Amino acid sequence: MSEELGITVKKKENFDEWYIQTILRSELADYSDVSGCLILRPDAYFIWEQIQKYTDKEFKKVGIKNVYFPLFIPEKLLNREKEHVEGFNPEVAWVTYAGERELDERLAVRPTSETIMYPSYSKWIRSWRDMPLRFNQWNNVVRWEFKHAVPFLRTREFLWNEGHTVFATEKEALAEQEEIVNIYKNITENVLAIPSIIGNKTEKEKFAGAVFTIAFEHMLPDGRAIQGPDFHHDGQKFAKAFDITFLDKKKERKYAWQNTFAISTREIGVMISLHSDDKGLVLPPKVALTQVVIVPIYKTENRNDVLKEARKIENTLSDFRTQVDDRDGVSPGFKFNEWELKGVPIRLEIGPKDIEKKQVVLVRRDTGKKSIVKINNISKEIENLLDGIHSNLLENAKKIMENHTHIAKNYDDLKEIIKTKMGMVKVCWCGEKKCEEKIKEDTTAKIITIPLKQENVNKCICCGKKAKYSVLVAKTY
Amino acid sequence: MSEELGITVKKKENFDEWYIQTILRSELADYSDVSGCLILRPDAYFIWEQIQKYTDKEFKKVGIKNVYFPLFIPEKLLNREKEHVEGFNPEVAWVTYAGERELDERLAVRPTSETIMYPSYSKWIRSWRDMPLRFNQWNNVVRWEFKHAVPFLRTREFLWNEGHTVFATEKEALAEQEEIVNIYKNITENVLAIPSIIGNKTEKEKFAGAVFTIAFEHMLPDGRAIQGPDFHHDGQKFAKAFDITFLDKKKERKYAWQNTFAISTREIGVMISLHSDDKGLVLPPKVALTQVVIVPIYKTENRNDVLKEARKIENTLSDFRTQVDDRDGVSPGFKFNEWELKGVPIRLEIGPKDIEKKQVVLVRRDTGKKSIVKINNISKEIENLLDGIHSNLLENAKKIMENHTHIAKNYDDLKEIIKTKMGMVKVCWCGEKKCEEKIKEDTTAKIITIPLKQENVNKCICCGKKAKYSVLVAKTY
Repeated sequence: MSEELGITVKKKENFDEWYIQTILRSELADYSDVSGCLILRPDAYFIWEQIQKYTDKEFKKVGIKNVYFPLFIPEKLLNREKEHVEGFNPEVAWVTYAGERELDERLAVRPTSETIMYPSYSKWIRSWRDMPLRFNQWNNVVRWEFKHAVPFLRTREFLWNEGHTVFATEKEALAEQEEIVNIYKNITENVLAIPSIIGNKTEKEKFAGAVFTIAFEHMLPDGRAIQGPDFHHDGQKFAKAFDITFLDKKKERKYAWQNTFAISTREIGVMISLHSDDKGLVLPPKVALTQVVIVPIYKTENRNDVLKEARKIENTLSDFRTQVDDRDGVSPGFKFNEWELKGVPIRLEIGPKDIEKKQVVLVRRDTGKKSIVKINNISKEIENLLDGIHSNLLENAKKIMENHTHIAKNYDDLKEIIKTKMGMVKVCWCGEKKCEEKIKEDTTAKIITIPLKQENVNKCICCGKKAKYSVLVAKTY
Repeated sequence: MSEELGITVKKKENFDEWYIQTILRSELADYSDVSGCLILRPDAYFIWEQIQKYTDKEFKKVGIKNVYFPLFIPEKLLNREKEHVEGFNPEVAWVTYAGERELDERLAVRPTSETIMYPSYSKWIRSWRDMPLRFNQWNNVVRWEFKHAVPFLRTREFLWNEGHTVFATEKEALAEQEEIVNIYKNITENVLAIPSIIGNKTEKEKFAGAVFTIAFEHMLPDGRAIQGPDFHHDGQKFAKAFDITFLDKKKERKYAWQNTFAISTREIGVMISLHSDDKGLVLPPKVALTQVVIVPIYKTENRNDVLKEARKIENTLSDFRTQVDDRDGVSPGFKFNEWELKGVPIRLEIGPKDIEKKQVVLVRRDTGKKSIVKINNISKEIENLLDGIHSNLLENAKKIMENHTHIAKNYDDLKEIIKTKMGMVKVCWCGEKKCEEKIKEDTTAKIITIPLKQENVNKCICCGKKAKYSVLVAKTY
């Protein structure tokens, strides 16, 4: 354990410092010797494993199969699709040497895998029978951003899934959107307790090479928005750049239709920032490596009896990820603080008097609420508590989003809200790039999304002309 | 599907070409646009997922936790342990640019992660209480070998686990060996049906930086040996290079003791080479993405009835990974060949006459043996067949190893056997490097292992002096 144990700043007073301290001191993650690259310690990697597990199961159910393509992309291939390469080139890490030998062609460390996968797709897809081809990979990617790195939220290497699917018709490709969006909605809400606004990115903000991008937008507690998982419809753009064609049922050669989609370790950062508090991490039960920590309270003379009972309870709780903190020479109070810092959802206290009364004390990490529960009733009670904790975290996160959602009456109002309150501001927009750019210039905030649920579309907040969309404007992470 | 469907060479006549054709034409894997890097297609990645699943479960049972460290290693860190860097430097892929900007310090793409992990270990480990620290990561590594790449068996990027554990005492570190070796033995034998000789590497052949290396040695059907999973005891070598110290119970500062261990995608190649045949892949049931393929045999007039029955059977076989090949316009014979090429363990044929008699035909991929089974008995029968297939594959692989194991009477005999028969030759060795090098020079084979099970240790085959060990000499892949 670090010598400085607790969090020394308040979340409300200094969010950025609180966030870093929470991650480092809970031993979730650590900085590495490579600038901008994070180390995921066991509790953090466990969270990622849960995200993978839940997502992968849903992917497999709808017929998506996992594959693995090389880490490296020859420069020539990366350059094949113009918009795509322009989007990624400034952030590419280049391998130029192998041992003492200079390579003939530079190799990009994948920032995303379209350009290494699609030459193979071109080779494998010959006829309409070869589709839908729905592949996914779980891997690491590198985007060498020069902005200040922030654990999970912006790191130069991160872990993600990248789905790359191919369909014979536009209609089938478009139909995949709902399936994937539902999968990501399930993971973010029901596993990580993160609410989202789901919507289209503007032309300016969409993925480099896509026809359109659907993204999940989250709200951080400090009023900045951050993008979560996304789904890109690529139309036939990459198919044309990489010659992915097929013979249809009439034996005519056609270009295929493609989508890509991703969820990354960034979600872990969003999750931490939303639920955690001044005492440290608060983990949603489904991703907590330890769900219940049993802290036995004893003196030397009754140590063995109490520990024995603690172990007995641990055994009855085998449906949950349970752990007994049996360290001698560490006070119960110290243990309470440490497990609070680490965000374990439920603490179970048991001492000699509890054993007499056949009861234990349960303490919720999210609310701090204590309850006394009969030993023969623990399992049921813990199941309910864990469900309750998840619901409570999600509700609180939704409130954070609501509290940070504002409506601007006019352009000055928009500027004022962004300046004083941050958050997401609902406005209407004509759809013109000119207005989008003016808003960004005047507010330093941008149009983060055109929500799928459109409401009250009237006049453009910027130019006053007839609006096309209701949109959200926010400062982003 | 590729236009050239079947394998055009015999395994016995041209093993190397047979091996490549088997992998490519079964659509298990494919070459990529990066020289020496392989694409794992769905059936291959599924095999890797099973290796991960079984291994990871066993790791977790003994208390090993997963983590994730960065892909990149700053050059200075890679250079910290002398023997280690000498072993890996010639094969390192170097990142020198990020976007347009030259990096101040070159970054190695990890060939293995000791040197990026241990600075953190040094920081995290303070007291005896912080150990054992048993971490593992599942990731990709790059070793830019200039030898000819061979799918799975030798690729420049590969997937693996790397376990990195730390103990307070040498005794505890050494005790881990048996635990890890048993886990890998379980995976290789009971999942992949691959037999091994387990033994120590010689000083010359051990891992760069280790005190000793225990490795699994496999025998390929062509008489070459190849190394499988391994376990390295590092003693205090890395602890000294990276300052991994702790205060023991007496408050004295001590260096920690370390181990590392790994299993990689290479095992997939060994598995393919041992079990597959002139018709294509033969997959052990536990790693086959499809375990049972149902091929309905019908004419237009009874198509619907037969397909309906096939679907019904598919439903009753939900305990197995089952698939109905319902493609119209493709003959049953073509389907048989294709699924044989892809190595599916059991083919289930059903036609109108079978339905009348309430039976199906089951065909084993490994032996080609047909059996007629009553429909109400299929599940039990398939379970038995799959078990039988696994046992048969393992037995056959053991026979390959036995047939390739020879005993040399004297030095000339050793040279002759290696020259004419290849395989593994049992000899005795004095333990001197001089003799080890002479053997290699005279035979082009090397001492691949000092088996844990030592037998009949008498005189060194090379110098005639008193021998220390019985060893195996073989040409390696």
